[in-house]
Amino acid sequence: MALFRTLRVLSLPALALGLGAASAVAADLPERPSAGDIIKTSKPADWRPTDPANTLYMDLPTGRVVIELAPDFAPLGVANIKTMVKEHYFDGLAVIRSQDNYVAQWGDPNAETKPKSLGTAKAKVPGEFTAPLANDKHFVLQKDADGYAPQIGHSNGFPVGRDPKAKTTWLAHCYGMVGVGRDNDTDSGSGSELYAITGHAPRHLDRNITLLGRVISGMPLLTTLPRGSEALGFYGPNEARMPIVSVRLEADVPEAERSHFEVMRSEAPIYEQVLEAQRNRGGPWNKYAANYLELCNAAIPVRERPKQ
Amino acid sequence: MALFRTLRVLSLPALALGLGAASAVAADLPERPSAGDIIKTSKPADWRPTDPANTLYMDLPTGRVVIELAPDFAPLGVANIKTMVKEHYFDGLAVIRSQDNYVAQWGDPNAETKPKSLGTAKAKVPGEFTAPLANDKHFVLQKDADGYAPQIGHSNGFPVGRDPKAKTTWLAHCYGMVGVGRDNDTDSGSGSELYAITGHAPRHLDRNITLLGRVISGMPLLTTLPRGSEALGFYGPNEARMPIVSVRLEADVPEAERSHFEVMRSEAPIYEQVLEAQRNRGGPWNKYAANYLELCNAAIPVRERPKQ
Repeated sequence: MALFRTLRVLSLPALALGLGAASAVAADLPERPSAGDIIKTSKPADWRPTDPANTLYMDLPTGRVVIELAPDFAPLGVANIKTMVKEHYFDGLAVIRSQDNYVAQWGDPNAETKPKSLGTAKAKVPGEFTAPLANDKHFVLQKDADGYAPQIGHSNGFPVGRDPKAKTTWLAHCYGMVGVGRDNDTDSGSGSELYAITGHAPRHLDRNITLLGRVISGMPLLTTLPRGSEALGFYGPNEARMPIVSVRLEADVPEAERSHFEVMRSEAPIYEQVLEAQRNRGGPWNKYAANYLELCNAAIPVRERPKQ
Repeated sequence: MALFRTLRVLSLPALALGLGAASAVAADLPERPSAGDIIKTSKPADWRPTDPANTLYMDLPTGRVVIELAPDFAPLGVANIKTMVKEHYFDGLAVIRSQDNYVAQWGDPNAETKPKSLGTAKAKVPGEFTAPLANDKHFVLQKDADGYAPQIGHSNGFPVGRDPKAKTTWLAHCYGMVGVGRDNDTDSGSGSELYAITGHAPRHLDRNITLLGRVISGMPLLTTLPRGSEALGFYGPNEARMPIVSVRLEADVPEAERSHFEVMRSEAPIYEQVLEAQRNRGGPWNKYAANYLELCNAAIPVRERPKQ
C-alpha cells in the first residue's frame, strides 16, 4: 500500500488573504491543482535563466552549491564579494560553522590566527541591511500579512520585506538565503564570511544584517554537514571542516562546466497561481485550507533548463 | 579578531506586541539581557523534568533522539504508539525518508512489500488534527498575531495554535515537532510512520495531520541524514537507510541508561521574559528590534538536569 507517501508539501490554491480570516474547515475540501500541477503547465517565458554575472558556484568536494546574488539589494556587498571571487579568495577556505536549525557559515578557518589576505577587496563595507524602496523595480506584492514587515513579496526570485512609509526594502531571512557575517559594527561584514540559513527562517535578523543572495541548488551539501561542537555550532580545532574547492562567478566558468538553472519569474501570472495553490490547498489529502501563506513558506521554483 | 562569531540567535527583549506595530529602528539599540542571559537566571522550579511515561527514546547507531509526547492533544495516537513501543514494533525499522527543508520520516522500509506486524496496535486511529480547547489546561498565550491561527502560545513546552470561536486547539508544525504520517483517509495514520520537521515550519500542515510530540534532543541525528534520492526524499531501494536500534518509553528504561532532560515551564514567568527577549533584541549587535515574534521562531528551552 502506498501509505504515508502522501505527506506532501505541494497542495492547492483558490482564495487568499490576510490574517485570521475565516478559513474553510471541511471534511472534504474540493480538489484543486497543486503548486506542482500548476508549475507543470508553465511556459518557457515563465522562467528566467540565472544571470552569469550574478551567480556564484561554490564547489565543494561533495558537489556544487549555486547562489544567485541580489545586487539591487546589496550592491556594495555583492561588488566586494565578486572582487574576492575573482581573486580566488575563497578557494581553499572551508565551512567553519554548522549550527542546527540555524546556519551553515563559511570563510577563513584561520581568520583569528593567520588570516588570508583579502587582496584588493575591502575589509569594511557599509552594511546594507535595507535598501531604498526605489532600488527594487521588480517587486510583486504577496497579499498575506506579516509580523516582521509591513509588506512582503518577491523580487526577481528573492523573498522581500518592505516598509512603504519608511521607503525601505530588504531581503528576508528565508531558508537558503545567504548573508554577510559581521561583528557589532555595521560595516564589519566584508563578505569574507558568508552564511546560509539552514533551518526555520530567523526573520528577526531581517534589517539587522546584509543579505545578498539565495542558494538555488545544493542546499543538502550544507544542511547535512555535521554540526560543530563549539558554541554556536563552530567547528573546534580538532574537527574536520568541509573544504571549499573554489568559488567562481558563473560568467567565468566555461560553458561546458556550467549548471543551467532557471528560476520562475516572480512577476509571471503563473507565480501568483503557484502562491495561491500553497495558500489554499485542496483535497483529498488536505482537510483544512489555511487561507494564509507565510513568506518563507512560499516556494520559489527553480529547475534545470529543459533540454533543447 | 573575533569577527563573525557574533552572528547569534539570542539577543534582547523589552517591548512586545502584535502585527505591524511601529518598531524601533535605531543606530544604537539599548543593551538588553538576551534570552540566554535570562535563562541563566532561572531557578530549578522554572524547569520541568520529562515525564518518563510520555517520553520516547529513539536510539539510532549514531545516538539518541528524545521525543516528548503530548497526550493531551492526541490521546489516541499517543496510546497506539505506546502499544507499538511496548511491543518493540519500531526496533529494527529505519529512517525511510529525508527531504531537505521538510521532514525526516521513519517506519517500516518494507511497508509496501512485507510489512511488519503491528501486534496489538491498531491499524487505523481517528485523526486528531485538533483537540477540544478544554483538553488543554496549560495554555499560555503568546501575544503575537499569527496567520495560521487566531491565537498562538505554548502548552507544557509545546507550540500551540487555537481557535477560541471554534473551541479547538492544535499543536503547531514547528521545527522538531513529530507527527503521524497518513494517507488520504483521516484515520489512516496509525503511528507506524512518524516524521519530524527538519526545516522551515510547514504551518499549512497544522490541522491537517496528527502532531503528537516534539524532539527535545538529538535533532542533528535526523537533520544531517543524507537526503533520499526518490520523490519526496524517500530513499530508493539501493540507498542505505539509518536503522533504528530501538524505540523505548523512558519509563521502561533503567535509570542508569536514562537521559535527564528538563524543559522550561511554559507557565513560568521567566518564560514570558525569554519570549520578550527574542521579540525585541537589544544592542550592540542588533540594530533593529522587530517587536514581533513568530510562534516557530520562539525557543522552547531544554537542558540536561543539573548535577545534584
